[in-house]
Amino acid sequence: MDNLGIDFVSELVGTALLVLLGCGVVANVALVRTKGFNGGFLMVNIGWGLAVFSGVIVAYASGAHLNPAVTLGLVANGAKTFGSEATLVDVNFLTVIAYIGAQLIGAIIGAVFVWLAYKQHFDAEPDAANKLGVFSTGPALRSYGWNLVTEIIGTFVLVFVVIGFGRNADGGGLAALGALPVALLVIAIGASLGGPTGYAINPARDLGPRLAHAFLPIKGKGSSDWAYSWVPVVGPIIGGLIAGWAAIPLLPILT
Amino acid sequence: MDNLGIDFVSELVGTALLVLLGCGVVANVALVRTKGFNGGFLMVNIGWGLAVFSGVIVAYASGAHLNPAVTLGLVANGAKTFGSEATLVDVNFLTVIAYIGAQLIGAIIGAVFVWLAYKQHFDAEPDAANKLGVFSTGPALRSYGWNLVTEIIGTFVLVFVVIGFGRNADGGGLAALGALPVALLVIAIGASLGGPTGYAINPARDLGPRLAHAFLPIKGKGSSDWAYSWVPVVGPIIGGLIAGWAAIPLLPILT
Amino acid sequence: MDNLGIDFVSELVGTALLVLLGCGVVANVALVRTKGFNGGFLMVNIGWGLAVFSGVIVAYASGAHLNPAVTLGLVANGAKTFGSEATLVDVNFLTVIAYIGAQLIGAIIGAVFVWLAYKQHFDAEPDAANKLGVFSTGPALRSYGWNLVTEIIGTFVLVFVVIGFGRNADGGGLAALGALPVALLVIAIGASLGGPTGYAINPARDLGPRLAHAFLPIKGKGSSDWAYSWVPVVGPIIGGLIAGWAAIPLLPILT
Amino acid sequence: MDNLGIDFVSELVGTALLVLLGCGVVANVALVRTKGFNGGFLMVNIGWGLAVFSGVIVAYASGAHLNPAVTLGLVANGAKTFGSEATLVDVNFLTVIAYIGAQLIGAIIGAVFVWLAYKQHFDAEPDAANKLGVFSTGPALRSYGWNLVTEIIGTFVLVFVVIGFGRNADGGGLAALGALPVALLVIAIGASLGGPTGYAINPARDLGPRLAHAFLPIKGKGSSDWAYSWVPVVGPIIGGLIAGWAAIPLLPILT
Repeated sequence: MDNLGIDFVSELVGTALLVLLGCGVVANVALVRTKGFNGGFLMVNIGWGLAVFSGVIVAYASGAHLNPAVTLGLVANGAKTFGSEATLVDVNFLTVIAYIGAQLIGAIIGAVFVWLAYKQHFDAEPDAANKLGVFSTGPALRSYGWNLVTEIIGTFVLVFVVIGFGRNADGGGLAALGALPVALLVIAIGASLGGPTGYAINPARDLGPRLAHAFLPIKGKGSSDWAYSWVPVVGPIIGGLIAGWAAIPLLPILT
Repeated sequence: MDNLGIDFVSELVGTALLVLLGCGVVANVALVRTKGFNGGFLMVNIGWGLAVFSGVIVAYASGAHLNPAVTLGLVANGAKTFGSEATLVDVNFLTVIAYIGAQLIGAIIGAVFVWLAYKQHFDAEPDAANKLGVFSTGPALRSYGWNLVTEIIGTFVLVFVVIGFGRNADGGGLAALGALPVALLVIAIGASLGGPTGYAINPARDLGPRLAHAFLPIKGKGSSDWAYSWVPVVGPIIGGLIAGWAAIPLLPILT
Repeated sequence: MDNLGIDFVSELVGTALLVLLGCGVVANVALVRTKGFNGGFLMVNIGWGLAVFSGVIVAYASGAHLNPAVTLGLVANGAKTFGSEATLVDVNFLTVIAYIGAQLIGAIIGAVFVWLAYKQHFDAEPDAANKLGVFSTGPALRSYGWNLVTEIIGTFVLVFVVIGFGRNADGGGLAALGALPVALLVIAIGASLGGPTGYAINPARDLGPRLAHAFLPIKGKGSSDWAYSWVPVVGPIIGGLIAGWAAIPLLPILT
Repeated sequence: MDNLGIDFVSELVGTALLVLLGCGVVANVALVRTKGFNGGFLMVNIGWGLAVFSGVIVAYASGAHLNPAVTLGLVANGAKTFGSEATLVDVNFLTVIAYIGAQLIGAIIGAVFVWLAYKQHFDAEPDAANKLGVFSTGPALRSYGWNLVTEIIGTFVLVFVVIGFGRNADGGGLAALGALPVALLVIAIGASLGGPTGYAINPARDLGPRLAHAFLPIKGKGSSDWAYSWVPVVGPIIGGLIAGWAAIPLLPILT
């Protein structure tokens, strides 16, 4: 398999694991009669953070973007290559599409397994909105403009700090730990900026499961809320691009 | 003592500690009049994760499987040896039986000490089901088929990612920390996939304490629910084997 | 840009991120109809700790003080230079003012973005005191003298232990991880000493957002409580200075 | 100052910090009208774990026992010296007394500062038992024999695993992180074995603050419950000694 093929599989498997564990914690907290029912928002934050942790470990080969906003933010930042040492690929239209495609397909697969793992609880759950909430984010107070602002800010923080991690990589510092700081950052963003929109901060994490919700034969499911679906796609892309551009003048200064 | 003897003691002590701390947190949350009563599912997740952390540290010599699903997953993955550098043993029928036997005996011992530590609260607890719940898992919604699916998925994630940890071991990365990433992974799986069945994801962790429940003179105890007992044994074994096989083609690609 | 300019930007960006994520978690827990509403004090502690984590990572260049009490504590401790290897500046009146000014401006900027991210929830929130609580700390039981004592003790612990971290820096120990131990320390202080005053332990973190509260057009806002505002400024400064002085004789002994 | 003097100060300061942050989190959760009131047992566990983290960092010079059960467990294990490389002292009657004396004095000092930090809330608290609970542990169900068993088991785990940490110290593994694994272990023990007695697992942590409770002019305080006070002293000492002895044959095998 060539390098791009390896990176494609890596992003796909990593994002599948990310979504399986991430949407899984929402299922545990939201669906009726689970053991973790009503477990609290901190449990959701920690669950999503450690979902990222697990996905990043598995997707070491491709650099573990697992998120189109990260991929596009790195492009905006001027990245010439993607992947880890053994699987470097040049950044071009094809590689960007391969990364984002793998992320989206992986996210769909992860969502299918969440449905299988919680099949009985999806069947028992009376509220259709709770079922959709396992798959995709929705706003606490619907206002597309302000919801977009929140997603832009949250994703900006994610991509800006992730780009900052690279700096310490050679120094044996925290960055060498790879997956852990990203996990802690995602817990931070969720706890702090997740209140208004449930922090998609990742187009694949939201759109992939929403597609799965639309095509899976989920008992008693309702609308997939396509009217809102563009916000957690466009917001993170804008936030990621701004972070990539902002990091060009700022991070070299800060290094 | 020969290497296999050392590995046997190591797995036994490690699994005893794992079960003592793991089942202990359930006792603290579930039994009447404890200080941690009703402490929440996140506390259970974190308690189990750090129980794994403690067990892994103590069982360094044997490679800290502490779980037949991990042992069998490594066999399926093609492992030639078990144990750490100083205590390597060849993988064969005898060593596999020794590892699994040590894990089961250790789990029984750990469960006995949980009972001793919480003796007063077991005596005071009026609900027999709560007492069994300290020892073994049970489904939120009983359906052997779907419960099996959940255990397979959860254990697949555990064993697949654990095999993935090995990859970074030489790079001074997170894997060098040994016990911590496994602990975080177990917290993630518990929070995310623990809702339907209480995540045994380890046949010894469930069967050992269930045997202890059956033979210990626990005041007012009820059934040990043997009808369900095969699910948290068979499910994790299937999940571990699939993960070991799946990792053969996938992880070398991802490395 | 000269070294002091780089350090200025570094402190400003780091403190902005610190306050965005830190005050953000309070908004999530306190404001009406957020997803994290009533998420608990532990969630606030963890959110603030990881806000410090994120800010420290981004402000590596300047040594990541992000807090006038840390800056002044280091001065009291006898620091000759500020910043990291590449951006060292001599400690003098100008550099101290530059650091503290950057921290205050960054804190104001961070608070503005919290308001933007939670705009809809600020508008929907009926209680003016809750709105101020997102920006600045207030005492549980108002008593300027005792509130001051609490802030002094909390900040003493912060600055004393932070100075202690430096000791292990060359040994490849925990201190090499940089941002993580400070984050854990802030979680500890918040959980343990945050009960009476909400743990400002940082004059910029409290005064900056209070200024933002005063000038931002927040719908239905009330008083900025200037009567209390000196406590979370003076207390942390006193605590930081005492810690810096106390560490002169003690830490060399302990090293 | 000679090496024993340095170790004495190190143990004293470290234990003071441990108790300040540890008893502080109980004050925050238990006393009326604090910000963390009713914050839950997990918050107490995490607060105590990170209190240990902070104390260990500051007491690097003396090897950070901070607990007579650890000191005596190391003696039982056959330790020839205490302290870190620069401050080694021979283990004899005098050094053991110096370590334990420093721990007890430090614990008293830490408890005094908790009282000062929460002075207003102690004054406002109507329940005398809650006030004592900030300082010292008490059993959920009083039965000196079984309470002793619980403290023995909990302290055995603490000292046994702490001795186990030493094994990996040269390998650049987790043990190099020093304070973090101990903190995680204490969170684990608290969550898992803290239900019946509130996990003293440290004679100084319990007796020191109990003495402070007895002599401090706390408004409306009740009995210091001296009848129970021997349990959290004798239990941890027994548990620590057993762990030290058990580790002699076991840990070399497991290494």
